Amino acid sequence: MDISKLTNDSRRSWTTRREKKARQIAKVQKLVNGQVIPTDKIVEALEALIMPGDCVALEGNNQKQASFLSSALNQVNPDKVNNLHMVMSSISRPEHLDIFEKGIAKLLDFSFAGPQSLRMAQMIEDGTVTVGSIHTYLELYGRLFVDLTPNIALVAADKADAQGNLYTGPNTEETPTIVEATAFRDGIVIAQVNELTDELPRVDIPGSWVDFVVVSDKPYQLEALFTRDPRQISEMHILMGMMAIRGIYERHNIQSLNHGVGFNTAAIELLLPTYGESLGLKGRICKNWALNPHPTLIPAIESGWVDSVHCFGGEVGMEKYVAARPDIFFTGKDGSLRSNRAMCQVAGQYAVDAFVGSTLQMDAYGNSSTVTLGRLAGYGGAPNMGSDPHGRRHSSDAWLNMITGESEIQRGKKLVIQMVETFQQGNKPVFVESLDAIKVGQDAKLPIAPVMVYGDDVTHVVTEEGIAYLYKAQNEEERKQALAAIAGVTPLGKESTADLKQRLRENGVIAFPEDLKVKRTDAKRSLLAARSIDDLVDWSGGLYEPPAKFRSW
Amino acid sequence: MDISKLTNDSRRSWTTRREKKARQIAKVQKLVNGQVIPTDKIVEALEALIMPGDCVALEGNNQKQASFLSSALNQVNPDKVNNLHMVMSSISRPEHLDIFEKGIAKLLDFSFAGPQSLRMAQMIEDGTVTVGSIHTYLELYGRLFVDLTPNIALVAADKADAQGNLYTGPNTEETPTIVEATAFRDGIVIAQVNELTDELPRVDIPGSWVDFVVVSDKPYQLEALFTRDPRQISEMHILMGMMAIRGIYERHNIQSLNHGVGFNTAAIELLLPTYGESLGLKGRICKNWALNPHPTLIPAIESGWVDSVHCFGGEVGMEKYVAARPDIFFTGKDGSLRSNRAMCQVAGQYAVDAFVGSTLQMDAYGNSSTVTLGRLAGYGGAPNMGSDPHGRRHSSDAWLNMITGESEIQRGKKLVIQMVETFQQGNKPVFVESLDAIKVGQDAKLPIAPVMVYGDDVTHVVTEEGIAYLYKAQNEEERKQALAAIAGVTPLGKESTADLKQRLRENGVIAFPEDLKVKRTDAKRSLLAARSIDDLVDWSGGLYEPPAKFRSW
Repeated sequence: MDISKLTNDSRRSWTTRREKKARQIAKVQKLVNGQVIPTDKIVEALEALIMPGDCVALEGNNQKQASFLSSALNQVNPDKVNNLHMVMSSISRPEHLDIFEKGIAKLLDFSFAGPQSLRMAQMIEDGTVTVGSIHTYLELYGRLFVDLTPNIALVAADKADAQGNLYTGPNTEETPTIVEATAFRDGIVIAQVNELTDELPRVDIPGSWVDFVVVSDKPYQLEALFTRDPRQISEMHILMGMMAIRGIYERHNIQSLNHGVGFNTAAIELLLPTYGESLGLKGRICKNWALNPHPTLIPAIESGWVDSVHCFGGEVGMEKYVAARPDIFFTGKDGSLRSNRAMCQVAGQYAVDAFVGSTLQMDAYGNSSTVTLGRLAGYGGAPNMGSDPHGRRHSSDAWLNMITGESEIQRGKKLVIQMVETFQQGNKPVFVESLDAIKVGQDAKLPIAPVMVYGDDVTHVVTEEGIAYLYKAQNEEERKQALAAIAGVTPLGKESTADLKQRLRENGVIAFPEDLKVKRTDAKRSLLAARSIDDLVDWSGGLYEPPAKFRSW
Repeated sequence: MDISKLTNDSRRSWTTRREKKARQIAKVQKLVNGQVIPTDKIVEALEALIMPGDCVALEGNNQKQASFLSSALNQVNPDKVNNLHMVMSSISRPEHLDIFEKGIAKLLDFSFAGPQSLRMAQMIEDGTVTVGSIHTYLELYGRLFVDLTPNIALVAADKADAQGNLYTGPNTEETPTIVEATAFRDGIVIAQVNELTDELPRVDIPGSWVDFVVVSDKPYQLEALFTRDPRQISEMHILMGMMAIRGIYERHNIQSLNHGVGFNTAAIELLLPTYGESLGLKGRICKNWALNPHPTLIPAIESGWVDSVHCFGGEVGMEKYVAARPDIFFTGKDGSLRSNRAMCQVAGQYAVDAFVGSTLQMDAYGNSSTVTLGRLAGYGGAPNMGSDPHGRRHSSDAWLNMITGESEIQRGKKLVIQMVETFQQGNKPVFVESLDAIKVGQDAKLPIAPVMVYGDDVTHVVTEEGIAYLYKAQNEEERKQALAAIAGVTPLGKESTADLKQRLRENGVIAFPEDLKVKRTDAKRSLLAARSIDDLVDWSGGLYEPPAKFRSW
């Protein structure tokens, strides 16, 4: 083998990305003032900075939106900027898809499209959008450093100083992750900010990672996604919450956890200070949380249940409350929350005992999906947390509790708990023969059906009928029997018999409320520590400031 | 439920961490100059800043060591500072364990103890060290944000400015992660730096996250851990490398990957520009890497195989080479590498097609461990990457290739490839009846045996005999048969028969070199693109500067 011949094959430049960046930046020198793009020049600047076919990370984030920049991108001339490869964790705003209709963008890698799921499904079918893959958040962040590294990042922050240092306030979220991947591979980072200032309260992203800032015409869009009004919590939610606390949290000694957003988990949060207290569980369970700042967690925090909460993002209205509770929340020297979606997803995947989620459909083996016909909502973060991380090696009581065998080589399991009522709204059974996701996947030509949580990862299912301890099921058949036994009067539920249920109860594979000493008649709204948004404000001593749409006063 | 009664239960302070921090910092005001602790006052400062029982994250990192700070911690008066809870990803230096003998520290949560594994096992048995848990790196980082949040972080950087902004150069590694978890929960962050300077080349960690900097008496310790001298690559490694390229990389279309460190993977890296080229695979496989800057990857980079490499950490001697290849490596505006161990672990777990590792022992079902009797080395990062991430939802050819069933609900698998010679040095069989890890775990009273990679996550095993395609095995029995068929003359290997091997070959569950069109006689050292460190320097055009211990000239 002649090495000199091999090396001589390669007379390439190793700085093509850096040179391209320099060329693009040179083009806007007449438009910009140092690092600042004038607000009214943003469209022109994007047309100069972005090349056709570039990979663009646009901060469509779960909560905050780089809305000024996405509007500007939607106004560029498609003759100049086209065929972009968009990398976005969340498709949230109309222009996130408009740019595909105009030909500005062509290829899309994303995680979540909740607000645009119907249109997304149609546009994929029409071929207007070509989907690379659908990810969980954490997978997408990983790929930013592997094969989806952006040429351009369009992100949002609260404030910038003259050096381009960024302050994000409570909504740090995924901005540092996007910026890091872009900045350190000679991409161009453009941040919209609500204001320019001389001195920042703290620095969330160093100025040496940022190329341009632009003051937006109005503050970035921010949605309150994790606020659940306690008035909508039903007695069924409360019953299920009591069963979960008694039959899962207490039984398995759950210390650390993530709650998906929903009324079932909101019920649990509001039952800890009342029902949980009456069981003597305060200080014994549910101490460390990977969670957005759920307003419904306020009573548990105030009554001393919670040691820590690390947050994926912020929550509108919770800013002052969080800032006043630095023992509990991660806050900066400026006093406000520091969230970090990437590290909170790592924590939620690897560092907590339990994930509690919900779903719209579940098949007889525990596979579930929130995808319904005609809607392609994507995954978000749930599958990342709602799965057993096989790489986990550290143990906890709850994790070890999932071991059922006697082998010398074994490992624990993360608790993946699904809470579902047996029927959805509109009297549709949750338990189905076949998930809609299968057909949606076929229609959209996805390589696999978009299953949110796979049955083999689910350890517990809670319905209003009882709990199925799926981790104890000996095989697929018993898994199905256990689910049928708590599936009520759905078609699957009707397959079960009194004898079968009795045997499963005796083997501890299912439990009914009476097995857990939970009285159905106790499941009253009076058991909730807060029964309205107003109550939550009271609990917070007025620190929680709910957005107008949640106020009744 | 009387809400007012509940709220009144809680008349606590919510700022105890912040107040404690302020008290501790007030105590050192006479010692420090602003944010700077004078070098000769560090022991005194630590005695004032650290409280007995504090949780301390000391940057014993896989590569760089906060060696000045660990020495200083080892000199504090145990009457003043004692019973610390140490959180360290890597136990590398003697004083990392000395502090336990002196009573300065008591409890330890860690990931890796390679260099101190013998002493670690002894000290656990003696009760000198109490182990919380042993983690992979990523799990430990996750827990920093959940239930192992430090009160004190002792970290290392290259340079600081007067505002406490830190520059890490290529060895950013896990420093930002430790600092973020500590700084944003009112912990105290102390960074040793090699120098103070007026202007930093770039900012890796903002000054508003850092409380104190101290100029160390000498630069922090940095080890070259990922350098493998090609002279030590044997023909057996080359044969196995050829089989892996042909029978796995090409067959499954592996685009993105992580290589563990070892001579088998070094052989593959050095075969890509020669053997791989001859197969026409350039530009078709192995394009995106999550990898430390392995010197043995230089020839593949130079001959145009590699699109990108994201790095966990730096590698001594590779600084100038990496800086000259910004199209490939993630580099900053200062031109030098930006590594990030947390995000590279995320990428290595979730965003790549394949992990290739090695091990010292493997049982008949594919469970493996590098733990041997009397040594407790911990996990490092391998189990995180050497496992199938059940939360993955995006697909790739390789991932989809692992699907063997026909069900409508299914998912792909990450390729977890183990490359082992059938015998270790000293003629010990690699394939064993029972892993030493079982006894080590029992002796150290660990809750589970310290298995590095579980058999159910392993998709392929390569020995000098052939490849076992374990993902195709129908059941545990066939898995064992496949391993036996490639286990050579080990006791397990002798259980196999010619008939059984033939049947497994026909079913594609195993392949021998001839099945892959790999000629044993071609497996010569002349096939390596570099056969010495010297050759690697040549390939790099003199940019690679190997440490003295690797030089023969």
